[in-house]
Amino acid sequence: MKAFNIVSLIRKKRDRQSLSPEEIRFLIQQYSKDEMPDYQMSAFLMATFLNGLDDNEAAALTYEMLHSGMVMDLSDVPGIKVDKHSTGGVGDKTSLILAPIVAACGVPVPMISGRGLGHSGGTLDKLESIPGFNVNLDLKRYVEVLKKHNLVLIGQTEEIAPADKRMYALRDVTATVECIPLIAGSIMSKKLAEGIDALVLDVKFGSGAFMKTREQALRLAERLVTIGEEFGKRTIAYLTGMEQPLGQNIGNWLEVRESIDCLNGGGPEDLLMVTHQLAGTMIYLGGEAASIEEGIMRSKESVQDGSAMQKFRDIV
Amino acid sequence: MKAFNIVSLIRKKRDRQSLSPEEIRFLIQQYSKDEMPDYQMSAFLMATFLNGLDDNEAAALTYEMLHSGMVMDLSDVPGIKVDKHSTGGVGDKTSLILAPIVAACGVPVPMISGRGLGHSGGTLDKLESIPGFNVNLDLKRYVEVLKKHNLVLIGQTEEIAPADKRMYALRDVTATVECIPLIAGSIMSKKLAEGIDALVLDVKFGSGAFMKTREQALRLAERLVTIGEEFGKRTIAYLTGMEQPLGQNIGNWLEVRESIDCLNGGGPEDLLMVTHQLAGTMIYLGGEAASIEEGIMRSKESVQDGSAMQKFRDIV
Repeated sequence: MKAFNIVSLIRKKRDRQSLSPEEIRFLIQQYSKDEMPDYQMSAFLMATFLNGLDDNEAAALTYEMLHSGMVMDLSDVPGIKVDKHSTGGVGDKTSLILAPIVAACGVPVPMISGRGLGHSGGTLDKLESIPGFNVNLDLKRYVEVLKKHNLVLIGQTEEIAPADKRMYALRDVTATVECIPLIAGSIMSKKLAEGIDALVLDVKFGSGAFMKTREQALRLAERLVTIGEEFGKRTIAYLTGMEQPLGQNIGNWLEVRESIDCLNGGGPEDLLMVTHQLAGTMIYLGGEAASIEEGIMRSKESVQDGSAMQKFRDIV
Repeated sequence: MKAFNIVSLIRKKRDRQSLSPEEIRFLIQQYSKDEMPDYQMSAFLMATFLNGLDDNEAAALTYEMLHSGMVMDLSDVPGIKVDKHSTGGVGDKTSLILAPIVAACGVPVPMISGRGLGHSGGTLDKLESIPGFNVNLDLKRYVEVLKKHNLVLIGQTEEIAPADKRMYALRDVTATVECIPLIAGSIMSKKLAEGIDALVLDVKFGSGAFMKTREQALRLAERLVTIGEEFGKRTIAYLTGMEQPLGQNIGNWLEVRESIDCLNGGGPEDLLMVTHQLAGTMIYLGGEAASIEEGIMRSKESVQDGSAMQKFRDIV
């Protein structure tokens, strides 16, 4: 690999110049090998926060964080593998409902979830509130479970995008979290590691969400879709206002309870609407519906005929 | 001391807000106590590099770096203590000539010198090229030598502005060196630690200097004078173009040789002119001349009558 001078690369970003893919690769690889100390990475992250990354830089960063760890090979699993990612917000429980729906409709859903950011619990935290639920399957079993159930839900392991994990921890203590290209790279490196073919994104905004304004959410959504396309994955993003938390219940166990209500055909209207929209889009991208509208119809049917609830029972 | 959240303070600077003196104090004190790790300081330094510091912040930073170490008390030494600082450049040898001149004219010159930056050798490096010259006097002897000779030349010890020393080392590896308020704070914290009453600054610019343009040099000079005034020290700054190195000889020992030539009444015209201007200003600030012009006359006399050369011999 070509060698660069770390200080020169920090200086380049500081001076608003674009880094080449080779230069980004060098930085992330040196950091992963502990040959670039945290204090240099944090200076680079702050320069990035203030001066941005262009699309090529963001794609290169995503690529390097992705390949810092294991990338799942799901070519053995038949079908178009589709996942959904939500940027999170208080009361976001759509994942728990739509994953069984989409799987029940014949689309394989490989889902590796992160922990919550700040006060908004992640899908994983919610699942762990179900006694006995094991989110720490190993990666071999990940493929087996997906093949068997069309659905696998696991927590982010050490093997998935470790460079992202370290950089995220560093961003957290250096005031460099709320940076759209860094957020996009972090999300996409983890999603791409799942071995997906397509991705639906639910970018939330509002006082209860991570992105405070619609404009920020739109910029993030654009970045996510651009990176997805760059990696050859069909990617569709929605913006969801979160001034009011979806559904009525906030808190991990209560949210699981409410999700089960939805899968049983009950549940609050707003939550159902968002869920069917996202699930329908996943079913469409997974090739099990000719349009998003048809996907939404199939999503609703899987709740009515009990197949989504059955899928939820299978995996729990 | 009031406690703040380090990440919040980094975020504040990142978001172009001004930090209060208490906030700056907190950061520097935490860093000095190893309670703020390098990776947080480097993020703060990069945010500072890109968003700047206002005059109050720069003064507070200087104050905290100054008081992170020992501040010399020269109240026992009669007279107005004056030093000169040059931002350095290839072939800057004025310190070696003017210090004996000014001391010979009756103004005490307490001079703590740093090492060279990059390719431009510092005064200290030049002095050490004189066999047997001891730049590591302890701080007690510093006062004694100054009292006896009106002149003391030592290297920056661990006791002088240690926070600046650590921050400078960190800036060097995080591409945050060329930042005018940080440079100004670094210079002034070390100069103020000498126990001076007044300061003459020689801010060089041009391809051979640290500041590449006259405009940058002017901004640095303004910052330095503002901080000096803030601390109640009379401060006068000159801008010196350095497209051509002063004098004819470059290299530590050759420069010492040339300095001795100057003190013996020889030496190149350009070097003599700059030296007498700066020395004259120091003599004026030290109260041994009624004007800079008179100071320049006295400076020239001290070379002609051999008293400057005698002073040089005394300290070597």
